[in-house]
Amino acid sequence: MTGPAAPFTTVTIERRDVGPTDVLLDIVCAGVCHTDVHHARAEFGHTHYPIVPGHEIAGVVREVGSEVTGLAAGDHVGIGCLVDSCRECALCRAGQESYCRDKVLTYNAIGRDGKVTLGGYSERVVADQRFLARIPDSLPLESAAPLLCAGITMYQPLRHWGAGPGKRVGILGFGGLGHIGTQISHALGAHTTVLELTEDRRGDAERLGADDYRTTGDLEALRDSFDLIVSTVPSAYDLSSHLDLLDFDGTFVNLGVPDEPLRIEPYAVLTNRRSLAGSMSGGMPETQEMLDFCAEHGIKAEVEVISAGELDSAYDRLSKGDVRYRFVLDTSTIAGS
Amino acid sequence: MTGPAAPFTTVTIERRDVGPTDVLLDIVCAGVCHTDVHHARAEFGHTHYPIVPGHEIAGVVREVGSEVTGLAAGDHVGIGCLVDSCRECALCRAGQESYCRDKVLTYNAIGRDGKVTLGGYSERVVADQRFLARIPDSLPLESAAPLLCAGITMYQPLRHWGAGPGKRVGILGFGGLGHIGTQISHALGAHTTVLELTEDRRGDAERLGADDYRTTGDLEALRDSFDLIVSTVPSAYDLSSHLDLLDFDGTFVNLGVPDEPLRIEPYAVLTNRRSLAGSMSGGMPETQEMLDFCAEHGIKAEVEVISAGELDSAYDRLSKGDVRYRFVLDTSTIAGS
Repeated sequence: MTGPAAPFTTVTIERRDVGPTDVLLDIVCAGVCHTDVHHARAEFGHTHYPIVPGHEIAGVVREVGSEVTGLAAGDHVGIGCLVDSCRECALCRAGQESYCRDKVLTYNAIGRDGKVTLGGYSERVVADQRFLARIPDSLPLESAAPLLCAGITMYQPLRHWGAGPGKRVGILGFGGLGHIGTQISHALGAHTTVLELTEDRRGDAERLGADDYRTTGDLEALRDSFDLIVSTVPSAYDLSSHLDLLDFDGTFVNLGVPDEPLRIEPYAVLTNRRSLAGSMSGGMPETQEMLDFCAEHGIKAEVEVISAGELDSAYDRLSKGDVRYRFVLDTSTIAGS
Repeated sequence: MTGPAAPFTTVTIERRDVGPTDVLLDIVCAGVCHTDVHHARAEFGHTHYPIVPGHEIAGVVREVGSEVTGLAAGDHVGIGCLVDSCRECALCRAGQESYCRDKVLTYNAIGRDGKVTLGGYSERVVADQRFLARIPDSLPLESAAPLLCAGITMYQPLRHWGAGPGKRVGILGFGGLGHIGTQISHALGAHTTVLELTEDRRGDAERLGADDYRTTGDLEALRDSFDLIVSTVPSAYDLSSHLDLLDFDGTFVNLGVPDEPLRIEPYAVLTNRRSLAGSMSGGMPETQEMLDFCAEHGIKAEVEVISAGELDSAYDRLSKGDVRYRFVLDTSTIAGS
């Protein structure tokens, strides 16, 4: 896109030469994340045009640099939200690159070479081996691509806050993130409840592993009944009444970034010694762990594969939440391919 | 007090007969907590008059019921925020009575006998042995009394969120709660920083164990530098800019109940995977542990002992934060004693 209201068009971009630790991959597909819409339409304020969105990239290795280890042409790999970080801070050293203050986002950011990063709605990309994850062969690339952002964004909080046997987990919002999070929480052994506005998605939720499905019209019946709730809701809502669903020492993880501050009644956290937490994507070691976990448990994104010509309408539909449950761009359809 | 604007006057009240598991104590002194002012002046809305405030009670056992074990006449004991709870829920069974939904507050609540509870600004009280804690002989009663609320309110979050060697703890607000929390955090081995509005309390803070003292005018210099912050601030303030002081996986515990909802910028918790938590006083086993810990480490409230005739002016001063650091009522000064 060449501007916030421009339609998608094909442009020719340059990728850097393959350095010693770089990998060149042929992109097969790229997930369409709601964040892409925010960036492309400049809803976060600062967008470099032309923008090439896409941070859920799945592809095949074409060429590796001289110092690359463990990857070879033909391997399936993925790239998520980051293509670089400072690599030196305590968080990078701990493999928590997504929290590095100098991380480089996969698109609409300034890379270490001073150039604007360009994302996955393209045919090829070059990235440092550190920021690639191997996609196990058992995962189809189109249903693996969304795991690189949506998957790790759910996996990290579920793991960090102890989803597992004996834990009661709520997944608030059953969309792009929630439908993957439900599968992960179920596979981790937690009693998993999907919380949604309507009954519409009950069938899908139960099919993907939800032990329970509740609509949020009657929150009172759910008071004090969760150890962990992960909220995927991107917009503002009554957070305090949802915090009330947590039992003693429960944690509510908010992943959404609404336009306005979160508002919390003090007693909503004082009661039951509750916590409200945030988390952002995840680092590279955990991204690899997540992909291996998903392969082992047969966890896949449910996708609607689209062509490049359908991107504009897909963005409109995504803004309305009209997708089950992730659009994935087939990059072979980019005009001129 | 007979009404929200009435002065303190002496009234005669009745205490219940000493039941099998009850203890009758002669109250020696009672701390004056800011919560007392809220209740007495009906700032929380619902007050039963006449009100006898006081939930930081220190006294001497006068008589014990036939089934009371481990306590005898002459022992020093204390009563905190609670005089009863349901004793049956999971939280009571876990010794977390302060989180029980059917807890009975020490004053301005309805007890199990259907009568309004009357607190520590009095000469005697009868309470079930479960809701008494033993005050070690090495702690003077007047400086131990405030530990029954302020002490446990600080001890619980500091212990639960891991204050100890290698941890960087911030105590936000150096008043009734903060001056005790600073001593506890220091004794637990944490690097303890007091955060205050002005330089006024630096000397006291350093004397009581603060490793560092910073004014909150320059928060930018303190970004990402705490593992745990316990906020004792009772009123509304810019919470997001204080959350920014937390390093990776840090927790901000809010103890205050301002009149308006807490407001948080979403990125203030997303960044560094931070948590905002709440906590309420603490249960009886931990209250005993706290008193023993304070005795072992010589931790005392710094108090200004007042007579009953000074209560009205003490309330006015407390509303303005004008006390170093806790008023304690000498109950022998109650008219008619």
